[in-house]
Amino acid sequence: MIRFDCDYVEGAHPSILEELTRSNLEQTAGYGEDPYCAAARGKIQAACRAPLAAVHFLVGGTQANATVIASILRPHQGVLCAATGHINVHETGAVEATGHKVLGLPHKDGKITAAQVEEAVRNHYADSAFEHIVQPGMVYISHPTEFGTLYSLEELTALSEVCRRHHLPLFLDGARLGYGLAAGDVQLPDLARLCDVFYIGGTKCGALFGEAVVITDPAINQDFRYHIKQRGGMLAKGRLLGIQFDALFTEDRYTAITAGAVRQAARIREKLQSRGVPMLIDSPTNQLFPILSHAQRGALEERFVLSHWQRVDENHDAMRICTSWATREENVEKLLAAIEGMPE
Amino acid sequence: MIRFDCDYVEGAHPSILEELTRSNLEQTAGYGEDPYCAAARGKIQAACRAPLAAVHFLVGGTQANATVIASILRPHQGVLCAATGHINVHETGAVEATGHKVLGLPHKDGKITAAQVEEAVRNHYADSAFEHIVQPGMVYISHPTEFGTLYSLEELTALSEVCRRHHLPLFLDGARLGYGLAAGDVQLPDLARLCDVFYIGGTKCGALFGEAVVITDPAINQDFRYHIKQRGGMLAKGRLLGIQFDALFTEDRYTAITAGAVRQAARIREKLQSRGVPMLIDSPTNQLFPILSHAQRGALEERFVLSHWQRVDENHDAMRICTSWATREENVEKLLAAIEGMPE
Amino acid sequence: MIRFDCDYVEGAHPSILEELTRSNLEQTAGYGEDPYCAAARGKIQAACRAPLAAVHFLVGGTQANATVIASILRPHQGVLCAATGHINVHETGAVEATGHKVLGLPHKDGKITAAQVEEAVRNHYADSAFEHIVQPGMVYISHPTEFGTLYSLEELTALSEVCRRHHLPLFLDGARLGYGLAAGDVQLPDLARLCDVFYIGGTKCGALFGEAVVITDPAINQDFRYHIKQRGGMLAKGRLLGIQFDALFTEDRYTAITAGAVRQAARIREKLQSRGVPMLIDSPTNQLFPILSHAQRGALEERFVLSHWQRVDENHDAMRICTSWATREENVEKLLAAIEGMPE
Amino acid sequence: MIRFDCDYVEGAHPSILEELTRSNLEQTAGYGEDPYCAAARGKIQAACRAPLAAVHFLVGGTQANATVIASILRPHQGVLCAATGHINVHETGAVEATGHKVLGLPHKDGKITAAQVEEAVRNHYADSAFEHIVQPGMVYISHPTEFGTLYSLEELTALSEVCRRHHLPLFLDGARLGYGLAAGDVQLPDLARLCDVFYIGGTKCGALFGEAVVITDPAINQDFRYHIKQRGGMLAKGRLLGIQFDALFTEDRYTAITAGAVRQAARIREKLQSRGVPMLIDSPTNQLFPILSHAQRGALEERFVLSHWQRVDENHDAMRICTSWATREENVEKLLAAIEGMPE
Repeated sequence: MIRFDCDYVEGAHPSILEELTRSNLEQTAGYGEDPYCAAARGKIQAACRAPLAAVHFLVGGTQANATVIASILRPHQGVLCAATGHINVHETGAVEATGHKVLGLPHKDGKITAAQVEEAVRNHYADSAFEHIVQPGMVYISHPTEFGTLYSLEELTALSEVCRRHHLPLFLDGARLGYGLAAGDVQLPDLARLCDVFYIGGTKCGALFGEAVVITDPAINQDFRYHIKQRGGMLAKGRLLGIQFDALFTEDRYTAITAGAVRQAARIREKLQSRGVPMLIDSPTNQLFPILSHAQRGALEERFVLSHWQRVDENHDAMRICTSWATREENVEKLLAAIEGMPE
Repeated sequence: MIRFDCDYVEGAHPSILEELTRSNLEQTAGYGEDPYCAAARGKIQAACRAPLAAVHFLVGGTQANATVIASILRPHQGVLCAATGHINVHETGAVEATGHKVLGLPHKDGKITAAQVEEAVRNHYADSAFEHIVQPGMVYISHPTEFGTLYSLEELTALSEVCRRHHLPLFLDGARLGYGLAAGDVQLPDLARLCDVFYIGGTKCGALFGEAVVITDPAINQDFRYHIKQRGGMLAKGRLLGIQFDALFTEDRYTAITAGAVRQAARIREKLQSRGVPMLIDSPTNQLFPILSHAQRGALEERFVLSHWQRVDENHDAMRICTSWATREENVEKLLAAIEGMPE
Repeated sequence: MIRFDCDYVEGAHPSILEELTRSNLEQTAGYGEDPYCAAARGKIQAACRAPLAAVHFLVGGTQANATVIASILRPHQGVLCAATGHINVHETGAVEATGHKVLGLPHKDGKITAAQVEEAVRNHYADSAFEHIVQPGMVYISHPTEFGTLYSLEELTALSEVCRRHHLPLFLDGARLGYGLAAGDVQLPDLARLCDVFYIGGTKCGALFGEAVVITDPAINQDFRYHIKQRGGMLAKGRLLGIQFDALFTEDRYTAITAGAVRQAARIREKLQSRGVPMLIDSPTNQLFPILSHAQRGALEERFVLSHWQRVDENHDAMRICTSWATREENVEKLLAAIEGMPE
Repeated sequence: MIRFDCDYVEGAHPSILEELTRSNLEQTAGYGEDPYCAAARGKIQAACRAPLAAVHFLVGGTQANATVIASILRPHQGVLCAATGHINVHETGAVEATGHKVLGLPHKDGKITAAQVEEAVRNHYADSAFEHIVQPGMVYISHPTEFGTLYSLEELTALSEVCRRHHLPLFLDGARLGYGLAAGDVQLPDLARLCDVFYIGGTKCGALFGEAVVITDPAINQDFRYHIKQRGGMLAKGRLLGIQFDALFTEDRYTAITAGAVRQAARIREKLQSRGVPMLIDSPTNQLFPILSHAQRGALEERFVLSHWQRVDENHDAMRICTSWATREENVEKLLAAIEGMPE
């Protein structure tokens, strides 16, 4: 079986393993204070054109989300996000476990708008019982979203403006950021300029594991390392993360390998569309959500592992097909052939 | 101005103040271990026909909700409730502050159904990523609900059955329970039989303050007093609560005084209906939700304080009118006259 | 049996019950926004000579402690206090339940010093692994302490200075403050000047229940009402607290009635000393800690309830004897006689 | 400079990197449900002679501690441990952040005894105010301890017995377990028999990162994967942990490589003793705590990085010297020579 069900079925870009192997018996200080972390930090600051930004390396996404959010909010505050946001549905209540309510807003293709944030804040303070209601304390978005969709630069700029007007830190979850950079018009310097904190996903974009949290607001960065330690994200051998991000941010590798995945996804999308397959959502990144008949699904699942996304009707399911930096050309060819050959 | 905006604008039933005054200089042990608490406990057990039920006296509703819920759930579990439930909207995230997600379900007039609970549990375990999702760990309902509506005995029985089948403790918030007992077919022995834990509201039903938490499941009662202390609900002079509930459960006072409020509300409802005023929700208890034109609202608000509930359209608002055990006949007469005289 | 075991065995000062009864059927707004709370606030501000201080009324001490502390600290911070502090030993981990470590320091008679705070802060930042250690974020003291002892004005001034130098809010738990004001040289305006937040205990000093939290630092007061609600301390009928503190701060009643208790304690202390009874701790307030032989203890416990404090040796126990605002002259006379008559 | 300051300055045992590289482009399911995790699980169960034990792979020690403890305790319970325990001093309050107090007991060389646990439990329930005090809910020990010391099989058996008598789960932190297995008489099957949950440290014992949590009590294992996810410890590419522990538990590698470190430490200890250097603590594992004069310290620190442990007097410091599985023979030789040559 060939897996197209998600973007973390393989290991890491080979350059990472080479570098881990090469450096293996070097001795370094722990907890992210080694030269590899310093080098990776410098390359990320450069890529973001944000020489003063703080960069911290955490192990995984759920941890990064909970750590950032808990470090920002006071106890009576919650985090605004799309109701479908990862923190609201797929992290086993990690944010609530730190004491905070996730304030889900209706979404469109996984996205929320500046106007919604504006309205949520206004409504909060307009309610005479506002002190009995969780106060909006920050905004969380993901880019790409759960549905593979992207904020345009214009949309992100508008969100940033409303957040700053209301003193709400804007936090962007970039677990799949590489695929977003490849497919959209928002680039790293935009994120550094418009967000207060965001992270550059490693786990799903070429690393073995790890997320690089970039903090542009010094107030948020204050004491942040205590929070990393408290939430279990401070790796003793911190250099493992430095080495990985150093490798990914060398020779533009991060954007190059994710762009490849987006191209492969585009080929699959075209083939599906040529067969008249509708899409649940129009996603420009590495995730596709075709609506397949049971017969079509059965045909593809003979040789490929896809991910079941949701039931559409009694004869159709929306499936998820993911490519990744590691997707092999030959496997894409096989999938294209299978799509070509599947029933109407 | 005469207040009809909520049911806690006056003090307590006079018998309570008399009893507090009479006993004032008696010396008793603290923390709920005095003879007054014991007496009140006995009367509540008798009224519930549940001689083995545990009865604890807590200071207020938000505290009772958070204390009960946090004592029951394990960290990865959440509490199912109507999306409009008090714990989900009007307690400043008190439940989340104990680490748990509130799992809001769509409501009908503030109520949820056995079928919804069944479906929520099934959906949870049917999801292949269920371990990434907060596990339903208990069910919270309120009776009367936020909208003054009631569960029928049949509905409550069905909820209880589905909860027991799935080992989900059923917790009923009875902040306004007196008004529910007066207006519906569910009585205290039913609650003791069908719920695992519930509380008998004092604050809004004749006491100065206080809620009597009744626990029928011994496993939930295990160590419950530690939780009361930890969440700040263990009154040093615990007898203050015992004295109040003792007074309320003497000579059927609790049901008698709340029944009076329900009768007054019925008179107001009839008058509103006679004027053709539609109701946002059809509530049989002490809360009414008439939809008034701006002109009507203005007319009433010259002499009465009502509560604004929600905007309906550009010319109409849904208002809340509350009676209580303390509502005076003469004030109701004045309100009836004002309704009679307000514009169409 | 006559109780001298603690200072919350009776109800409230009669003026409070009179006022509750008189106002009982008045209608007021809820949640502390009524004229009685406003009046009490004004009297407390005047007594503290702090017209800009915020005053909030909470139900009890454990709740006041947890609410204040959780509102101030960020997640990686803890609260410095005497290892014997109430929050560290007798609140069932209420502070930890909000996510924060209590950083216990060695105590002398329940007290800590400015030098200890200074040292704790220095040691924290001097440790190369300081980010792996809970950061001191505020200081908690009680006055009187668990042992009935008091900070002198000089000691409190020194503590305040070190706290301000290190930006550590100083929080004073005044659950028994009245007895401290009566017995020491620290007065309310000193507290308002030297602390960032403190509370004036009602429960043990003449009220039925309630603590008046005084916040002199506007940054701490920001959004504090949300925290009160979230932690279950916002009484629907908030006026109950306003009425009580209004009564206690009328005609200097608060200090007058607690001074009486301190005088009665002094009489008992003298009698014990005249019989050669040593004291575990030399407390000037309403709590005494005599070391009694088993024979002496037995003699007194025939007619009086005392509190067992700790075992001293196989023949002696330290007991606690408390007076309160409600202690009757005649009962003190009986106790004096019993002490006079007890064995050597 | 040659580092002897801690046991995580290098990468991983070469077999791990080889296996990561070999398997890199294989496609597997995520979240620990891949064949590598299954294989590693089987080898660990075999090594523990506990075929029914559950084995979970978590990323790091702080996370493993907080996840296990939070999954076991109810809100009013705390964890008994040595006051010097890692969870009490070096995890930035990670346990408190989950709502629980760490109940520190006086230690002897980092260890606690069965008698102390017995006494703590007795004292708790003997206190009349026990409900106002955090209830002991489990016991945490580390093996080796922070001081490199070990529990004997007899001591561990006694602890296990007292824990079972009082229904307190016994949790053993084995962050450095390999060095303990090599130096003491407690072996893996003993741990599986005597503890309810323990972990086999990877980070400090040959892996890049990772700890294998072994749970022998099915009640504790119930829903444990939800907790891993909630606390951020569920690695998307879970196989990274499986591959590492599979390699470590192949051909007895785990015990072989840690035994080497213990032998090197023994050589250094002998040399120090031959120079008359006293030890702060007599540790049989890979950590040594020599008390060096400033002159001696200065001499060694010219070429070696040691860790400062504590000040002893104005002329002496206790230092920590660590070996690890990666310590090179040649570097040990250099250190021995330097010790030989340092001043008296």
